[in-house]
Amino acid sequence: MNVNGKPYRSIWPSADGGSVEVIDQTKLPHAFVIKRITSVDEAASAISDMVVRGAPLIGAAAAYGVCLALDEDPSDAGLEAACGRLGATRPTAINLSWALARMRAAVAPLAEKDRADRAWRLAAEICDEDVETNRAIGEHGLKLIADLYRGGGESGPVNILTHCNAGWLATVDWGTALAAVYLAHDAGIPVHVWVSETRPRNQGARLTAWELHQHAVPHTLIVDGAGGHLMQHGRVDCCLTGTDRTTARGDVCNKIGTYPTALAAHDNGVPFYVALPGSTIDWSITDGVREIPIETRDPSEVARVTGRTDGGSVETVTVPPEESRVANYAFDVTPARLVTALITERGVCEASAAGLAALYGFS
Amino acid sequence: MNVNGKPYRSIWPSADGGSVEVIDQTKLPHAFVIKRITSVDEAASAISDMVVRGAPLIGAAAAYGVCLALDEDPSDAGLEAACGRLGATRPTAINLSWALARMRAAVAPLAEKDRADRAWRLAAEICDEDVETNRAIGEHGLKLIADLYRGGGESGPVNILTHCNAGWLATVDWGTALAAVYLAHDAGIPVHVWVSETRPRNQGARLTAWELHQHAVPHTLIVDGAGGHLMQHGRVDCCLTGTDRTTARGDVCNKIGTYPTALAAHDNGVPFYVALPGSTIDWSITDGVREIPIETRDPSEVARVTGRTDGGSVETVTVPPEESRVANYAFDVTPARLVTALITERGVCEASAAGLAALYGFS
Repeated sequence: MNVNGKPYRSIWPSADGGSVEVIDQTKLPHAFVIKRITSVDEAASAISDMVVRGAPLIGAAAAYGVCLALDEDPSDAGLEAACGRLGATRPTAINLSWALARMRAAVAPLAEKDRADRAWRLAAEICDEDVETNRAIGEHGLKLIADLYRGGGESGPVNILTHCNAGWLATVDWGTALAAVYLAHDAGIPVHVWVSETRPRNQGARLTAWELHQHAVPHTLIVDGAGGHLMQHGRVDCCLTGTDRTTARGDVCNKIGTYPTALAAHDNGVPFYVALPGSTIDWSITDGVREIPIETRDPSEVARVTGRTDGGSVETVTVPPEESRVANYAFDVTPARLVTALITERGVCEASAAGLAALYGFS
Repeated sequence: MNVNGKPYRSIWPSADGGSVEVIDQTKLPHAFVIKRITSVDEAASAISDMVVRGAPLIGAAAAYGVCLALDEDPSDAGLEAACGRLGATRPTAINLSWALARMRAAVAPLAEKDRADRAWRLAAEICDEDVETNRAIGEHGLKLIADLYRGGGESGPVNILTHCNAGWLATVDWGTALAAVYLAHDAGIPVHVWVSETRPRNQGARLTAWELHQHAVPHTLIVDGAGGHLMQHGRVDCCLTGTDRTTARGDVCNKIGTYPTALAAHDNGVPFYVALPGSTIDWSITDGVREIPIETRDPSEVARVTGRTDGGSVETVTVPPEESRVANYAFDVTPARLVTALITERGVCEASAAGLAALYGFS
């Protein structure tokens, strides 16, 4: 997607080889900074520190992290150490282990001298596939948005509420949930996005709002608790979010606050759609609430907020009293019963074991 | 309640008469500042700017605003202008119009020379009544907390989730929801409060956390969207909030985000209690979602966050892109069906027309 009119992906190998470049998402929207990653440790830190974030992009970044590791040490020990280091960065997103497993399976059988080259090619393939996958998700989601537009008599914009950032910054390009929004906007369907700020890291306020502004999609920022009120008053036509991990029966694990928003949608008869690539499905688990480990992150993410001062500098401020204990639960699980449909690269399905099995051929 | 060991109310007439002093709640928790209010315009600004906030305290501040106005101009025109000016400050809290109506009814029949004196006495009575009312609410709520403690086999703390600030800072003293928490803590019942930060103005992070810390009540700050996750995992024994306006059938209008939290409580079988003085009941309306006007406040409250810098100064930062539209809905309505019980100064009742009528003798 475009940044100031110039097309970008969120991650790409540097022109001179041997390193990777990413958009530093901790700096947005206050500054647009490209960060160069030159080692597996830097790749791991970029994931931990959320320089890159979003389940699909984490997978791509981990894949490139393996490349950087193999450039240094293509031995079995080097490969295992890299996968271990990268796999430990974020516990919730399944794409991370999916990408690492794929990289390991591809390079482990090769002679050491051939491993790095194969790894770089595969990481690029993973990125290209992600772009195509997201475009396909967007095409399927577009149909749902078009249906809502027609269902409303084409009388006004389709009001879509999203939570966190499931846009192109969360992926290599296009995004998952927002791919459909961009395609609808480009197709001339008027859309308006309610962007929840997404505490504690404000990915909605910082990233989704920035993305939508760059693409000229009308949007309004709200606090995370406001979705229910808007839905009670008929001002949301559908909710549309991403997911960091999806169970075999369609439970979705997404940014903290998704579950209460889904409850509000259900209580008001508003469709709640979740967009995902097949790589976020964890076929090994069914009950998301019981089985998905929920990452607990640094309390300072809740207590401290970064933004622009009126003087133009970027500053971080602490809100609560110093003495108060703070807890930072990063995700929650929305049970499949609250999800109207899953939007995948293979089509739209019911959020159920049967629905997913019909698309992916598992049972 | 105590501040650094010294007892305070949130509002009081100054020792020299002719003005009122309040704790400037916009400065907490970073600084404890007493602000003097010397005119009806300053009283109105203090309410609008949330130097004082919380439904009961707004009523008390408005009552003193009338006193300050009558000191200047005790004519009918002066009285009406003051009530008009003060009544327009905040549209949602019913206590505001309740307090103004009471002041007007008491002073309007009097000769102009007697009005100010009567007004000052009545404002003090309104404050004293508020303190007694809240203490009674707390005693009734204490029984519910004690029941939860016994129901849990007295094995650990009672985990109470609250939203916004319904503590003593929202009232003249004690608080509504938190009165029960303070009484339980003082009675030796171990309690732990999950404090939602309460975007956009962070009254949970700034005020509730500060209050609880000052009274040594164990508490943990969380983001507003985290309550559902905690309830899914059995970590909340009850929710306990205040309300800014309650309808005759028990719908409650409270800080934005209360409704999704109530949905999460309902979905997980967690009791959702709402504490209120009778003065917040609007007997003229039943359907809260349809009939209660929801205040829309300045978008900058969402976009900008104030806190302490690492250097120790207090600074305000802006989070989203400058170009993004922002909307600030201040309240939402939780339908009575999601409220387990109402805790009033007259006792605990079902959130229904029958429940309220039984306590208050209306039908």
